[in-house]
Amino acid sequence: MSASPFDDWMRTALDQVEIELDRQVPADAPAELGLAMRYGVLDGGKRLRPLLVLAAAGCVDGHPEAALRAACAVELIHAYSLIHDDMPCMDNDVLRRGKPTVHVQYGEARAMLAGDAMQALAFEVLTPEDTDDGVPPALQARLCSLLARASGVLGMAGGQAIDLAHVGKQMDEAALQDMHGRKTGALLQASVLMGAACGRTTPAQWQALADYGWAIGLAFQVVDDILDVTQCAETLGKTAGKDADQNKPTYVSLLGLEGARERAQSLHAQAHAALERGAFADARWLATLADRVVERDS
Amino acid sequence: MSASPFDDWMRTALDQVEIELDRQVPADAPAELGLAMRYGVLDGGKRLRPLLVLAAAGCVDGHPEAALRAACAVELIHAYSLIHDDMPCMDNDVLRRGKPTVHVQYGEARAMLAGDAMQALAFEVLTPEDTDDGVPPALQARLCSLLARASGVLGMAGGQAIDLAHVGKQMDEAALQDMHGRKTGALLQASVLMGAACGRTTPAQWQALADYGWAIGLAFQVVDDILDVTQCAETLGKTAGKDADQNKPTYVSLLGLEGARERAQSLHAQAHAALERGAFADARWLATLADRVVERDS
Repeated sequence: MSASPFDDWMRTALDQVEIELDRQVPADAPAELGLAMRYGVLDGGKRLRPLLVLAAAGCVDGHPEAALRAACAVELIHAYSLIHDDMPCMDNDVLRRGKPTVHVQYGEARAMLAGDAMQALAFEVLTPEDTDDGVPPALQARLCSLLARASGVLGMAGGQAIDLAHVGKQMDEAALQDMHGRKTGALLQASVLMGAACGRTTPAQWQALADYGWAIGLAFQVVDDILDVTQCAETLGKTAGKDADQNKPTYVSLLGLEGARERAQSLHAQAHAALERGAFADARWLATLADRVVERDS
Repeated sequence: MSASPFDDWMRTALDQVEIELDRQVPADAPAELGLAMRYGVLDGGKRLRPLLVLAAAGCVDGHPEAALRAACAVELIHAYSLIHDDMPCMDNDVLRRGKPTVHVQYGEARAMLAGDAMQALAFEVLTPEDTDDGVPPALQARLCSLLARASGVLGMAGGQAIDLAHVGKQMDEAALQDMHGRKTGALLQASVLMGAACGRTTPAQWQALADYGWAIGLAFQVVDDILDVTQCAETLGKTAGKDADQNKPTYVSLLGLEGARERAQSLHAQAHAALERGAFADARWLATLADRVVERDS
Protein backbone atom coordinates (compact mmCIF):
# COMPACT_ATOMS: atom_id res chain seq x y z
CA MET A 1 0.00 0.00 0.00
CA SER A 2 1.43 3.38 -0.98
CA ALA A 3 1.67 6.22 1.51
CA SER A 4 -0.97 8.94 1.46
CA PRO A 5 -0.12 12.34 -0.03
CA PHE A 6 -0.12 13.70 3.53
CA ASP A 7 2.38 11.08 4.62
CA ASP A 8 4.60 11.98 1.67
CA TRP A 9 4.40 15.67 2.56
CA MET A 10 5.04 14.91 6.20
CA ARG A 11 8.09 12.77 5.51
CA THR A 12 9.64 15.48 3.36
CA ALA A 13 8.83 18.14 5.96
CA LEU A 14 10.25 16.07 8.82
CA ASP A 15 13.43 15.39 6.86
CA GLN A 16 13.91 19.11 6.24
CA VAL A 17 13.39 19.92 9.91
CA GLU A 18 15.76 17.18 11.06
CA ILE A 19 18.50 18.31 8.68
CA GLU A 20 18.09 21.94 9.73
CA LEU A 21 18.06 21.12 13.46
CA ASP A 22 21.16 18.98 12.98
CA ARG A 23 22.82 21.94 11.25
CA GLN A 24 21.73 24.48 13.87
CA VAL A 25 22.47 22.66 17.12
CA PRO A 26 26.24 22.59 17.45
CA ALA A 27 27.85 19.27 18.38
CA ASP A 28 31.07 21.03 19.34
CA ALA A 29 29.64 23.39 21.96
CA PRO A 30 31.84 23.38 25.06
CA ALA A 31 31.78 20.94 27.94
CA GLU A 32 29.28 18.54 26.37
CA LEU A 33 26.65 21.28 26.31
CA GLY A 34 26.11 20.70 22.60
CA LEU A 35 25.79 16.96 23.12
CA ALA A 36 23.14 17.50 25.79
CA MET A 37 21.25 19.89 23.52
CA ARG A 38 21.39 17.49 20.60
CA TYR A 39 20.32 14.61 22.86
CA GLY A 40 17.33 16.67 23.93
CA VAL A 41 16.11 17.73 20.52
CA LEU A 42 17.35 15.43 17.72
CA ASP A 43 15.82 12.12 16.64
CA GLY A 44 12.81 12.25 18.83
CA GLY A 45 9.28 13.45 19.23
CA LYS A 46 6.42 13.78 16.82
CA ARG A 47 7.52 17.23 15.61
CA LEU A 48 3.91 18.41 15.69
CA ARG A 49 4.91 22.05 16.15
CA PRO A 50 7.28 22.19 13.15
CA LEU A 51 4.64 20.42 11.04
CA LEU A 52 2.08 23.05 12.06
CA VAL A 53 4.48 25.84 11.10
CA LEU A 54 5.21 24.32 7.71
CA ALA A 55 1.58 23.39 7.00
CA ALA A 56 0.40 26.90 7.89
CA ALA A 57 3.16 28.46 5.81
CA GLY A 58 2.10 26.23 2.92
CA CYS A 59 -1.44 27.52 3.34
CA VAL A 60 -0.39 31.13 2.78
CA ASP A 61 2.44 30.65 0.27
CA GLY A 62 4.92 31.52 3.02
CA HIS A 63 8.64 32.26 2.72
CA PRO A 64 10.18 28.74 2.75
CA GLU A 65 13.48 29.60 4.48
CA ALA A 66 11.71 31.66 7.15
CA ALA A 67 9.18 28.87 7.72
CA LEU A 68 11.90 26.25 8.12
CA ARG A 69 13.72 28.46 10.62
CA ALA A 70 10.47 29.08 12.49
CA ALA A 71 9.78 25.34 12.54
CA CYS A 72 13.16 24.64 14.14
CA ALA A 73 12.88 27.54 16.58
CA VAL A 74 9.52 26.41 17.93
CA GLU A 75 10.79 22.84 18.31
CA LEU A 76 13.83 24.12 20.22
CA ILE A 77 11.52 25.92 22.63
CA HIS A 78 9.37 22.81 23.03
CA ALA A 79 12.40 20.57 23.57
CA TYR A 80 13.97 22.92 26.13
CA SER A 81 10.69 23.04 28.05
CA LEU A 82 10.64 19.23 28.24
CA ILE A 83 14.21 19.15 29.56
CA HIS A 84 13.42 21.65 32.32
CA ASP A 85 10.01 20.09 33.02
CA ASP A 86 11.59 16.66 33.56
CA MET A 87 14.08 17.91 36.15
CA PRO A 88 13.87 16.79 39.78
CA CYS A 89 12.63 20.18 41.00
CA MET A 90 9.74 20.00 38.50
CA ASP A 91 8.16 16.68 37.41
CA ASN A 92 11.20 14.54 38.28
CA ASP A 93 10.77 12.28 35.26
CA VAL A 94 13.46 9.82 34.24
CA LEU A 95 12.03 8.62 30.92
CA ARG A 96 11.20 10.67 27.83
CA ARG A 97 10.64 9.44 24.29
CA GLY A 98 11.75 6.02 25.51
CA LYS A 99 15.18 7.30 26.61
CA PRO A 100 16.63 8.52 29.92
CA THR A 101 15.82 12.21 30.35
CA VAL A 102 18.57 14.77 29.75
CA HIS A 103 19.34 15.37 33.42
CA VAL A 104 19.65 11.61 33.99
CA GLN A 105 22.04 11.35 31.07
CA TYR A 106 24.05 14.57 31.48
CA GLY A 107 23.44 15.75 35.05
CA GLU A 108 21.11 18.43 36.35
CA ALA A 109 23.38 21.42 35.88
CA ARG A 110 24.10 20.60 32.25
CA ALA A 111 20.41 19.87 31.63
CA MET A 112 19.40 23.27 32.95
CA LEU A 113 22.09 25.02 30.89
CA ALA A 114 21.20 23.01 27.79
CA GLY A 115 17.60 24.16 28.14
CA ASP A 116 18.69 27.76 28.66
CA ALA A 117 20.98 27.61 25.62
CA MET A 118 18.23 26.04 23.51
CA GLN A 119 15.88 28.90 24.28
CA ALA A 120 18.58 31.36 23.18
CA LEU A 121 19.29 29.23 20.10
CA ALA A 122 15.65 29.46 19.06
CA PHE A 123 16.05 33.22 18.74
CA GLU A 124 19.45 32.84 17.06
CA VAL A 125 17.84 30.61 14.44
CA LEU A 126 15.11 33.22 13.84
CA THR A 127 17.64 36.02 13.31
CA PRO A 128 20.28 34.74 10.87
CA GLU A 129 23.44 36.85 10.87
CA ASP A 130 24.03 36.28 7.19
CA THR A 131 22.03 39.02 5.55
CA ASP A 132 22.04 37.05 2.28
CA ASP A 133 19.80 34.53 3.96
CA GLY A 134 16.81 36.23 2.47
CA VAL A 135 14.51 36.34 5.53
CA PRO A 136 13.32 39.95 5.68
CA PRO A 137 14.30 41.59 9.01
CA ALA A 138 10.72 42.67 9.71
CA LEU A 139 9.64 39.02 9.44
CA GLN A 140 12.48 37.99 11.75
CA ALA A 141 11.24 40.48 14.35
CA ARG A 142 7.63 39.30 13.98
CA LEU A 143 8.63 35.67 14.44
CA CYS A 144 10.67 36.53 17.54
CA SER A 145 7.71 38.43 18.94
CA LEU A 146 5.26 35.55 18.42
CA LEU A 147 7.65 32.94 19.80
CA ALA A 148 8.73 34.97 22.85
CA ARG A 149 5.14 35.73 23.87
CA ALA A 150 4.10 32.07 23.51
CA SER A 151 7.08 30.97 25.62
CA GLY A 152 6.91 33.41 28.51
CA VAL A 153 4.59 34.36 31.36
CA LEU A 154 1.56 34.74 29.11
CA GLY A 155 2.29 31.36 27.55
CA MET A 156 4.23 28.25 28.36
CA ALA A 157 6.17 29.32 31.45
CA GLY A 158 3.06 30.89 32.97
CA GLY A 159 1.07 27.72 32.34
CA GLN A 160 3.73 25.57 33.95
CA ALA A 161 3.70 27.79 37.01
CA ILE A 162 -0.07 27.39 37.32
CA ASP A 163 0.32 23.63 36.85
CA LEU A 164 2.90 23.36 39.64
CA ALA A 165 0.81 25.45 41.98
CA HIS A 166 -2.19 23.14 41.56
CA VAL A 167 -0.75 19.69 42.21
CA GLY A 168 -3.19 18.01 44.58
CA LYS A 169 -5.64 20.91 44.39
CA GLN A 170 -9.07 21.23 42.85
CA MET A 171 -9.41 23.15 39.60
CA ASP A 172 -12.59 23.96 37.73
CA GLU A 173 -12.81 23.65 33.98
CA ALA A 174 -12.18 27.32 33.29
CA ALA A 175 -8.98 27.23 35.36
CA LEU A 176 -7.87 23.99 33.70
CA GLN A 177 -8.47 25.50 30.27
CA ASP A 178 -6.56 28.65 31.20
CA MET A 179 -3.64 26.56 32.40
CA HIS A 180 -3.48 24.35 29.31
CA GLY A 181 -4.16 27.26 26.98
CA ARG A 182 -0.93 28.75 28.27
CA LYS A 183 1.14 25.67 28.98
CA THR A 184 0.61 23.78 25.72
CA GLY A 185 -1.89 25.76 23.67
CA ALA A 186 0.07 28.98 23.32
CA LEU A 187 3.06 27.35 21.63
CA LEU A 188 0.89 25.19 19.35
CA GLN A 189 -1.11 28.25 18.35
CA ALA A 190 2.10 30.22 17.87
CA SER A 191 3.38 27.46 15.58
CA VAL A 192 0.40 28.01 13.30
CA LEU A 193 0.69 31.80 13.47
CA MET A 194 4.45 31.79 12.87
CA GLY A 195 3.80 29.79 9.71
CA ALA A 196 1.06 32.25 8.77
CA ALA A 197 3.38 35.22 9.40
CA CYS A 198 5.73 33.83 6.73
CA GLY A 199 3.12 34.63 4.07
CA ARG A 200 0.19 36.91 3.45
CA THR A 201 -3.15 36.64 5.17
CA THR A 202 -6.24 38.80 5.44
CA PRO A 203 -7.17 39.73 9.01
CA ALA A 204 -10.02 37.20 8.77
CA GLN A 205 -7.62 34.47 7.69
CA TRP A 206 -5.22 35.35 10.49
CA GLN A 207 -8.08 35.05 12.98
CA ALA A 208 -9.18 31.75 11.42
CA LEU A 209 -5.68 30.34 11.88
CA ALA A 210 -5.55 31.68 15.44
CA ASP A 211 -8.87 29.91 16.16
CA TYR A 212 -7.63 26.72 14.50
CA GLY A 213 -4.42 26.85 16.54
CA TRP A 214 -6.33 27.45 19.76
CA ALA A 215 -8.70 24.52 19.12
CA ILE A 216 -6.03 21.98 18.23
CA GLY A 217 -3.86 23.22 21.10
CA LEU A 218 -6.59 22.43 23.57
CA ALA A 219 -7.57 19.21 21.77
CA PHE A 220 -3.95 18.09 22.03
CA GLN A 221 -4.04 18.45 25.79
CA VAL A 222 -7.42 16.75 26.18
CA VAL A 223 -6.11 13.78 24.16
CA ASP A 224 -2.92 13.79 26.27
CA ASP A 225 -5.04 13.44 29.39
CA ILE A 226 -7.03 10.60 27.80
CA LEU A 227 -3.88 8.77 26.71
CA ASP A 228 -2.37 9.15 30.16
CA VAL A 229 -5.08 6.88 31.56
CA THR A 230 -5.64 4.55 28.58
CA GLN A 231 -2.13 3.82 27.31
CA CYS A 232 0.85 2.05 28.82
CA ALA A 233 4.28 3.64 29.23
CA GLU A 234 5.70 1.57 26.36
CA THR A 235 3.35 3.16 23.83
CA LEU A 236 3.72 6.67 25.26
CA GLY A 237 7.51 6.51 25.61
CA LYS A 238 7.13 8.22 28.96
CA THR A 239 5.83 7.37 32.40
CA ALA A 240 2.07 6.68 32.20
CA GLY A 241 -0.58 7.30 34.85
CA LYS A 242 1.64 10.07 36.18
CA ASP A 243 -1.06 12.73 36.39
CA ALA A 244 -3.36 10.55 38.50
CA ASP A 245 -0.43 9.51 40.71
CA GLN A 246 0.41 13.15 41.33
CA ASN A 247 -3.25 13.96 41.84
CA LYS A 248 -3.10 16.58 39.11
CA PRO A 249 -6.38 17.90 37.73
CA THR A 250 -6.97 16.63 34.15
CA TYR A 251 -9.78 16.70 31.62
CA VAL A 252 -10.45 13.05 32.45
CA SER A 253 -10.68 13.69 36.19
CA LEU A 254 -12.95 16.66 35.50
CA LEU A 255 -15.17 15.42 32.65
CA GLY A 256 -14.73 11.63 32.89
CA LEU A 257 -13.25 9.55 30.06
CA GLU A 258 -16.32 9.82 27.83
CA GLY A 259 -16.74 13.51 28.51
CA ALA A 260 -13.08 14.11 27.62
CA ARG A 261 -13.50 12.17 24.37
CA GLU A 262 -16.54 14.26 23.46
CA ARG A 263 -14.60 17.43 24.23
CA ALA A 264 -11.77 16.32 21.92
CA GLN A 265 -14.25 15.68 19.13
CA SER A 266 -15.88 19.06 19.63
CA LEU A 267 -12.51 20.86 19.47
CA HIS A 268 -11.63 18.85 16.38
CA ALA A 269 -14.81 20.10 14.71
CA GLN A 270 -14.00 23.68 15.77
CA ALA A 271 -10.56 23.40 14.18
CA HIS A 272 -12.05 22.26 10.87
CA ALA A 273 -14.71 24.97 10.98
CA ALA A 274 -12.00 27.61 11.49
CA LEU A 275 -10.11 26.38 8.43
CA GLU A 276 -13.30 26.60 6.38
CA ARG A 277 -13.90 30.17 7.57
CA GLY A 278 -10.41 31.08 6.35
CA ALA A 279 -11.30 29.97 2.79
CA PHE A 280 -7.67 29.10 2.04
CA ALA A 281 -6.67 27.87 -1.40
CA ASP A 282 -5.27 24.74 0.18
CA ALA A 283 -5.47 23.95 3.89
CA ARG A 284 -5.50 20.18 3.56
CA TRP A 285 -2.30 19.54 5.58
CA LEU A 286 -3.59 21.63 8.47
CA ALA A 287 -6.88 19.73 8.24
CA THR A 288 -5.11 16.37 8.36
CA LEU A 289 -2.92 17.52 11.23
CA ALA A 290 -6.07 18.33 13.20
CA ASP A 291 -7.27 14.77 12.53
CA ARG A 292 -3.95 13.29 13.62
CA VAL A 293 -3.90 15.31 16.84
CA VAL A 294 -7.22 13.83 17.87
CA GLU A 295 -6.75 10.31 16.50
CA ARG A 296 -3.22 9.71 17.83
CA ASP A 297 -2.59 6.84 20.24
CA SER A 298 0.72 8.07 21.63
CA MET B 1 29.71 68.64 47.21
CA SER B 2 27.62 68.31 44.08
CA ALA B 3 27.48 65.06 42.11
CA SER B 4 29.65 64.68 39.02
CA PRO B 5 28.05 64.99 35.57
CA PHE B 6 28.54 61.23 35.20
CA ASP B 7 26.67 60.58 38.43
CA ASP B 8 23.83 62.81 37.24
CA TRP B 9 23.69 60.96 33.92
CA MET B 10 23.85 57.62 35.70
CA ARG B 11 21.06 58.46 38.13
CA THR B 12 18.76 59.51 35.30
CA ALA B 13 19.65 56.40 33.29
CA LEU B 14 19.09 54.07 36.25
CA ASP B 15 15.73 55.67 36.99
CA GLN B 16 14.63 55.14 33.40
CA VAL B 17 15.72 51.50 33.46
CA GLU B 18 14.02 50.84 36.79
CA ILE B 19 10.74 52.39 35.63
CA GLU B 20 10.83 50.44 32.39
CA LEU B 21 11.67 47.13 34.10
CA ASP B 22 8.87 47.74 36.59
CA ARG B 23 6.51 48.32 33.65
CA GLN B 24 7.70 45.27 31.70
CA VAL B 25 7.85 42.59 34.40
CA PRO B 26 4.25 41.76 35.25
CA ALA B 27 3.32 41.59 38.93
CA ASP B 28 0.12 39.73 38.11
CA ALA B 29 1.67 36.77 36.29
CA PRO B 30 0.11 33.52 37.47
CA ALA B 31 1.05 31.48 40.53
CA GLU B 32 3.54 34.02 41.92
CA LEU B 33 5.71 33.67 38.82
CA GLY B 34 5.61 37.42 38.32
CA LEU B 35 6.55 38.03 41.95
CA ALA B 36 9.55 35.72 41.62
CA MET B 37 10.61 37.47 38.42
CA ARG B 38 10.29 40.90 39.99
CA TYR B 39 12.17 39.73 43.09
CA GLY B 40 14.96 38.54 40.84
CA VAL B 41 15.37 41.66 38.74
CA LEU B 42 13.97 44.77 40.45
CA ASP B 43 15.73 46.95 43.02
CA GLY B 44 19.05 45.27 42.87
CA GLY B 45 22.37 45.08 41.18
CA LYS B 46 24.66 47.67 39.72
CA ARG B 47 22.88 47.68 36.34
CA LEU B 48 26.23 47.78 34.59
CA ARG B 49 24.84 46.19 31.43
CA PRO B 50 21.94 48.65 31.00
CA LEU B 51 24.35 51.51 31.64
CA LEU B 52 26.67 50.18 28.92
CA VAL B 53 23.75 49.96 26.48
CA LEU B 54 22.63 53.51 27.20
CA ALA B 55 26.14 54.96 27.22
CA ALA B 56 26.97 53.28 23.89
CA ALA B 57 23.67 54.44 22.40
CA GLY B 58 24.48 57.96 23.58
CA CYS B 59 27.82 57.69 21.80
CA VAL B 60 26.17 57.06 18.43
CA ASP B 61 23.04 59.18 18.78
CA GLY B 62 20.99 55.99 19.14
CA HIS B 63 17.21 55.52 19.03
CA PRO B 64 16.23 56.27 22.68
CA GLU B 65 13.23 53.91 22.94
CA ALA B 66 15.15 51.07 21.33
CA ALA B 67 18.12 51.67 23.63
CA LEU B 68 15.94 51.63 26.74
CA ARG B 69 14.31 48.38 25.63
CA ALA B 70 17.73 46.89 24.89
CA ALA B 71 18.95 48.00 28.32
CA CYS B 72 16.06 46.19 30.02
CA ALA B 73 16.38 43.10 27.84
CA VAL B 74 20.04 42.62 28.61
CA GLU B 75 19.39 43.08 32.34
CA LEU B 76 16.61 40.48 32.18
CA ILE B 77 19.07 38.00 30.63
CA HIS B 78 21.67 38.81 33.28
CA ALA B 79 19.14 38.49 36.10
CA TYR B 80 17.76 35.19 34.83
CA SER B 81 21.29 33.79 34.59
CA LEU B 82 21.92 34.69 38.24
CA ILE B 83 18.71 32.95 39.32
CA HIS B 84 19.65 29.75 37.50
CA ASP B 85 23.30 30.00 38.52
CA ASP B 86 22.36 30.23 42.21
CA MET B 87 20.25 27.07 42.14
CA PRO B 88 21.31 23.98 44.09
CA CYS B 89 22.24 22.04 40.95
CA MET B 90 24.60 24.87 39.94
CA ASP B 91 26.41 27.05 42.50
CA ASN B 92 23.94 26.39 45.34
CA ASP B 93 24.10 29.95 46.60
CA VAL B 94 21.65 31.24 49.20
CA LEU B 95 22.58 34.93 49.24
CA ARG B 96 22.53 37.40 46.35
CA ARG B 97 22.58 41.18 46.50
CA GLY B 98 22.20 40.83 50.28
CA LYS B 99 18.89 38.95 49.98
CA PRO B 100 17.94 35.27 49.95
CA THR B 101 18.27 33.93 46.40
CA VAL B 102 15.12 33.39 44.34
CA HIS B 103 14.99 29.62 44.85
CA VAL B 104 15.32 30.09 48.61
CA GLN B 105 12.49 32.61 48.58
CA TYR B 106 10.15 31.02 45.99
CA GLY B 107 11.26 27.38 45.66
CA GLU B 108 13.39 25.73 43.02
CA ALA B 109 10.66 25.02 40.50
CA ARG B 110 9.41 28.57 40.48
CA ALA B 111 12.97 29.90 40.33
CA MET B 112 13.71 27.83 37.25
CA LEU B 113 10.47 28.92 35.58
CA ALA B 114 11.03 32.55 36.53
CA GLY B 115 14.44 32.40 34.85
CA ASP B 116 12.97 30.75 31.77
CA ALA B 117 10.19 33.34 31.57
CA MET B 118 12.69 36.18 32.02
CA GLN B 119 14.71 34.98 29.05
CA ALA B 120 11.54 34.94 26.96
CA LEU B 121 10.57 38.36 28.32
CA ALA B 122 13.89 39.81 27.16
CA PHE B 123 12.89 39.00 23.58
CA GLU B 124 9.34 40.22 24.16
CA VAL B 125 10.73 43.56 25.30
CA LEU B 126 12.88 43.78 22.17
CA THR B 127 9.93 43.12 19.85
CA PRO B 128 7.09 45.43 20.95
CA GLU B 129 3.72 44.40 19.56
CA ASP B 130 2.55 47.95 19.28
CA THR B 131 3.79 49.05 15.88
CA ASP B 132 3.42 52.69 16.95
CA ASP B 133 6.30 52.12 19.33
CA GLY B 134 8.67 53.45 16.74
CA VAL B 135 11.46 50.88 17.00
CA PRO B 136 12.14 49.88 13.39
CA PRO B 137 11.57 46.13 12.86
CA ALA B 138 15.02 45.67 11.34
CA LEU B 139 16.55 47.11 14.53
CA GLN B 140 14.36 44.81 16.63
CA ALA B 141 15.71 41.82 14.68
CA ARG B 142 19.31 43.01 15.03
CA LEU B 143 18.94 43.46 18.79
CA CYS B 144 17.42 39.97 19.13
CA SER B 145 20.29 38.53 17.13
CA LEU B 146 22.97 40.18 19.26
CA LEU B 147 21.28 39.26 22.54
CA ALA B 148 20.53 35.64 21.59
CA ARG B 149 24.10 34.98 20.46
CA ALA B 150 25.55 36.50 23.63
CA SER B 151 23.22 34.38 25.77
CA GLY B 152 23.58 30.96 24.15
CA VAL B 153 26.23 28.32 23.53
CA LEU B 154 28.70 30.78 22.03
CA GLY B 155 28.18 33.12 24.98
CA MET B 156 26.89 32.94 28.51
CA ALA B 157 25.42 29.43 28.64
CA GLY B 158 28.50 27.97 26.95
CA GLY B 159 30.77 29.77 29.42
CA GLN B 160 28.79 28.46 32.38
CA ALA B 161 29.08 24.93 31.04
CA ILE B 162 32.86 25.30 30.80
CA ASP B 163 32.92 26.74 34.32
CA LEU B 164 30.99 23.81 35.76
CA ALA B 165 33.15 21.28 33.97
CA HIS B 166 36.34 22.76 35.49
CA VAL B 167 35.55 22.92 39.20
CA GLY B 168 38.61 21.46 40.93
CA LYS B 169 40.53 21.19 37.66
CA GLN B 170 43.52 23.05 36.31
CA MET B 171 42.95 25.65 33.61
CA ASP B 172 45.59 27.64 31.77
CA GLU B 173 45.13 31.34 31.09
CA ALA B 174 43.88 30.85 27.55
CA ALA B 175 41.18 28.47 28.76
CA LEU B 176 40.23 30.79 31.62
CA GLN B 177 39.96 33.71 29.21
CA ASP B 178 37.84 31.67 26.80
CA MET B 179 35.53 30.69 29.65
CA HIS B 180 35.11 34.23 30.99
CA GLY B 181 34.91 35.70 27.51
CA ARG B 182 31.81 33.61 27.03
CA LYS B 183 30.37 33.51 30.53
CA THR B 184 30.54 37.21 31.39
CA GLY B 185 32.31 38.96 28.54
CA ALA B 186 29.89 38.10 25.75
CA LEU B 187 26.90 39.74 27.44
CA LEU B 188 28.89 42.82 28.51
CA GLN B 189 30.21 43.20 24.96
CA ALA B 190 26.71 42.64 23.58
CA SER B 191 25.43 45.40 25.85
CA VAL B 192 27.82 47.84 24.20
CA LEU B 193 27.03 46.57 20.71
CA MET B 194 23.26 46.62 21.27
CA GLY B 195 23.59 50.26 22.25
CA ALA B 196 25.73 50.84 19.16
CA ALA B 197 23.16 49.09 16.95
CA CYS B 198 20.58 51.67 18.03
CA GLY B 199 22.49 54.36 16.12
CA ARG B 200 24.90 54.73 13.24
CA THR B 201 28.51 53.65 13.31
CA THR B 202 31.24 53.23 10.74
CA PRO B 203 32.69 49.70 10.58
CA ALA B 204 35.77 51.04 12.39
CA GLN B 205 33.63 52.50 15.16
CA TRP B 206 31.70 49.25 15.49
CA GLN B 207 34.98 47.38 15.86
CA ALA B 208 36.24 49.94 18.38
CA LEU B 209 33.13 49.41 20.50
CA ALA B 210 33.48 45.63 20.16
CA ASP B 211 37.08 45.92 21.39
CA TYR B 212 36.03 48.22 24.22
CA GLY B 213 33.28 45.78 25.22
CA TRP B 214 35.64 42.84 25.11
CA ALA B 215 38.24 44.59 27.26
CA ILE B 216 35.85 45.78 29.97
CA GLY B 217 34.10 42.40 29.92
CA LEU B 218 37.32 40.65 30.79
CA ALA B 219 38.39 43.41 33.20
CA PHE B 220 35.09 42.98 35.02
CA GLN B 221 35.83 39.32 35.61
CA VAL B 222 39.42 39.90 36.69
CA VAL B 223 38.19 42.45 39.23
CA ASP B 224 35.49 40.00 40.36
CA ASP B 225 38.17 37.43 41.08
CA ILE B 226 40.21 40.03 42.98
CA LEU B 227 37.21 41.13 45.06
CA ASP B 228 36.32 37.52 45.84
CA VAL B 229 39.53 37.22 47.86
CA THR B 230 39.85 40.79 49.20
CA GLN B 231 36.30 41.71 50.23
CA CYS B 232 33.91 40.38 52.84
CA ALA B 233 30.44 39.06 52.09
CA GLU B 234 28.81 42.17 53.55
CA THR B 235 30.41 44.44 50.97
CA LEU B 236 29.82 42.04 48.09
CA GLY B 237 26.22 41.22 49.02
CA LYS B 238 26.97 37.61 48.18
CA THR B 239 28.98 34.76 49.61
CA ALA B 240 32.70 35.67 49.49
CA GLY B 241 35.66 33.36 49.09
CA LYS B 242 33.40 31.00 47.22
CA ASP B 243 35.67 30.41 44.24
CA ALA B 244 38.61 29.37 46.42
CA ASP B 245 36.34 27.15 48.51
CA GLN B 246 35.14 25.40 45.37
CA ASN B 247 38.68 25.22 44.05
CA LYS B 248 37.65 27.07 40.90
CA PRO B 249 40.40 28.46 38.70
CA THR B 250 40.49 32.29 38.89
CA TYR B 251 42.75 35.08 37.66
CA VAL B 252 44.07 35.41 41.19
CA SER B 253 44.89 31.71 41.48
CA LEU B 254 46.56 31.85 38.07
CA LEU B 255 48.34 35.22 38.12
CA GLY B 256 48.51 35.99 41.84
CA LEU B 257 46.83 39.05 43.38
CA GLU B 258 49.36 41.53 42.00
CA GLY B 259 49.36 39.89 38.58
CA ALA B 260 45.57 40.06 38.48
CA ARG B 261 45.65 43.76 39.43
CA GLU B 262 48.13 44.46 36.65
CA ARG B 263 45.94 42.57 34.20
CA ALA B 264 42.91 44.66 35.21
CA GLN B 265 44.90 47.85 34.62
CA SER B 266 46.10 46.64 31.25
CA LEU B 267 42.55 45.82 30.13
CA HIS B 268 41.39 49.19 31.42
CA ALA B 269 44.01 50.87 29.21
CA GLN B 270 42.90 48.76 26.24
CA ALA B 271 39.30 49.86 26.75
CA HIS B 272 40.29 53.53 26.71
CA ALA B 273 42.51 53.02 23.67
CA ALA B 274 39.60 51.42 21.80
CA LEU B 275 37.37 54.41 22.54
CA GLU B 276 40.05 56.75 21.22
CA ARG B 277 40.34 54.70 18.03
CA GLY B 278 36.58 55.10 17.52
CA ALA B 279 36.95 58.91 17.50
CA PHE B 280 33.40 59.36 18.80
CA ALA B 281 31.95 62.82 19.28
CA ASP B 282 31.32 62.02 22.93
CA ALA B 283 32.33 58.75 24.57
CA ARG B 284 32.84 60.13 28.06
CA TRP B 285 30.21 57.96 29.77
CA LEU B 286 31.70 54.80 28.28
CA ALA B 287 35.13 56.02 29.42
CA THR B 288 33.91 56.61 32.96
CA LEU B 289 32.15 53.24 33.01
CA ALA B 290 35.47 51.58 32.16
CA ASP B 291 37.01 53.40 35.14
CA ARG B 292 34.21 52.33 37.44
CA VAL B 293 34.45 48.68 36.35
CA VAL B 294 38.09 48.57 37.39
CA GLU B 295 37.87 50.80 40.48
CA ARG B 296 34.78 49.22 42.05
CA ASP B 297 35.01 47.65 45.49
CA SER B 298 31.89 45.47 45.29
